[in-house]
Amino acid sequence: MLPKGNFPEKVFLNGKIISAEDAKISVFDRGFLFGDGIYEVMVQLENGIFYKKAHLDRLQDNLNKIGVSFHVKTIDDALEPLLKASDLTDKSCLIYMQVTRGVAPRKHSFPKGAPATVMMYALPYDLPSINPKNMKAILEPDFRWHRCDIKSISLLGNIMTNESAMESGADEAALVRDGMISEGSHTNIFFVKDGTVITHPANEHILDGISRQIVLKLCKEMNIPTLEKPVPQTEIQNMDEAFFTGTTTQVASIAVLGEHTFYDNDNVGKTTKRLQEAFAKLRTTDTSQSTL
Amino acid sequence: MLPKGNFPEKVFLNGKIISAEDAKISVFDRGFLFGDGIYEVMVQLENGIFYKKAHLDRLQDNLNKIGVSFHVKTIDDALEPLLKASDLTDKSCLIYMQVTRGVAPRKHSFPKGAPATVMMYALPYDLPSINPKNMKAILEPDFRWHRCDIKSISLLGNIMTNESAMESGADEAALVRDGMISEGSHTNIFFVKDGTVITHPANEHILDGISRQIVLKLCKEMNIPTLEKPVPQTEIQNMDEAFFTGTTTQVASIAVLGEHTFYDNDNVGKTTKRLQEAFAKLRTTDTSQSTL
Repeated sequence: MLPKGNFPEKVFLNGKIISAEDAKISVFDRGFLFGDGIYEVMVQLENGIFYKKAHLDRLQDNLNKIGVSFHVKTIDDALEPLLKASDLTDKSCLIYMQVTRGVAPRKHSFPKGAPATVMMYALPYDLPSINPKNMKAILEPDFRWHRCDIKSISLLGNIMTNESAMESGADEAALVRDGMISEGSHTNIFFVKDGTVITHPANEHILDGISRQIVLKLCKEMNIPTLEKPVPQTEIQNMDEAFFTGTTTQVASIAVLGEHTFYDNDNVGKTTKRLQEAFAKLRTTDTSQSTL
Repeated sequence: MLPKGNFPEKVFLNGKIISAEDAKISVFDRGFLFGDGIYEVMVQLENGIFYKKAHLDRLQDNLNKIGVSFHVKTIDDALEPLLKASDLTDKSCLIYMQVTRGVAPRKHSFPKGAPATVMMYALPYDLPSINPKNMKAILEPDFRWHRCDIKSISLLGNIMTNESAMESGADEAALVRDGMISEGSHTNIFFVKDGTVITHPANEHILDGISRQIVLKLCKEMNIPTLEKPVPQTEIQNMDEAFFTGTTTQVASIAVLGEHTFYDNDNVGKTTKRLQEAFAKLRTTDTSQSTL
């Protein structure tokens, strides 16, 4: 039996839509034994699944990176039936998807021919047009692996860091690797300095978030100059604004980052506000097939 | 149904011993969603479970490190019934154990009060007194996280590296971080130079293997000088001997490491051979309660 909590009603598991209660996998699934899989989170809003194609393309790309044979078309095809069974057709919801390397006797190297395990579910989820939170974030050492470009379920580093943030009463932890701010525990981070939007380059030390890519695209369209370079921890105090991005975070203003206070009230920086509004406008049309 | 392969007959899962076929966990188990758990591997040999207490103590220590509330006494108590049900009482076998943070709605931060998930099984496993293999290992970049001291199931970095070794027709991959040899993909690595045994210090970049600790203890008893410092990749060619250690690897001579060939025949270095023999002698007595 599932404990009490915000579980979905239905789960898509390997081709079948079943009750969350019955959604069980073998203890020999490599997702359970090795964290050997990839995940994605999308949201369905007023006009369809926000950047669905971009998310599914990234999922495919990540599965290819770790050598899991699976085509995301299976997931795309299953979305409509899953949403229907979950009574969430056309309703605001969060969609979680996970693909693992499947079931095999425990052995580090990859099994040959094991079919991938596919799990997904949808949960009611309301997302305001603009994130009203002015976030407080702590700084934590980035002790994660060096392939953060892979959206893997081997997430112990991320969850330990996120737990530190929660324990501190903060909303998020921004990570510092070799003195440079890389990203949040489950978000990307941006800074604004003299009108230029600055964020860590999309290399192996961060996940190239869909929302991150959207923000960079919006900057281009709005003639806001951008710079993809790591910001040193010591430079935080010299930045004018900072914000996190993410699928459920959207564009979230940062009020406090480590020792530095950007705002001790509800103020949101000018550029952050412009980007929040432009981001909000995107959901007034159907972006499910949009590319980045 | 489980695919064909070397699965155990029985699995201990949350207090019950069931058929491997029926051993299933919720898709909301944090082991499956986040790689949020710890594992251990032990072997039962002629005189009991080899360094059982040392393994269980480490498991407890690791669970404490990541804040999972669980006492390994549960596992210790379940070993006998599991071995009996598996028809492996007093027989040579491998024992795998995994504890995760339990079942909860998906959220990075830790759930409060979720009982840990405990899974273990035993498989027939024959381990010769001395590992007859003279191993061939490739060198791979160590892109894993910086808490390798935690024996976590978030193992994607390890398995990707191990797969590279298997694809190259090698037996193992030795990892290189910042120019230094850290450890193998699922072993520790030692070198011998002018009679001194050298291995990476037990810091956050390696797992402090039980076999690693045994070898260091044997060196002390045998008056073999030891040095715990990282060996630069560029120094491999100047080393006299090299070997891997691990629970199933024991002490395994390395014939080829990266570009360097120690032996193009079955030769095993003098110090490696002495340690292999001393290691083999340990199993002639009961070490299940031995500490390190």
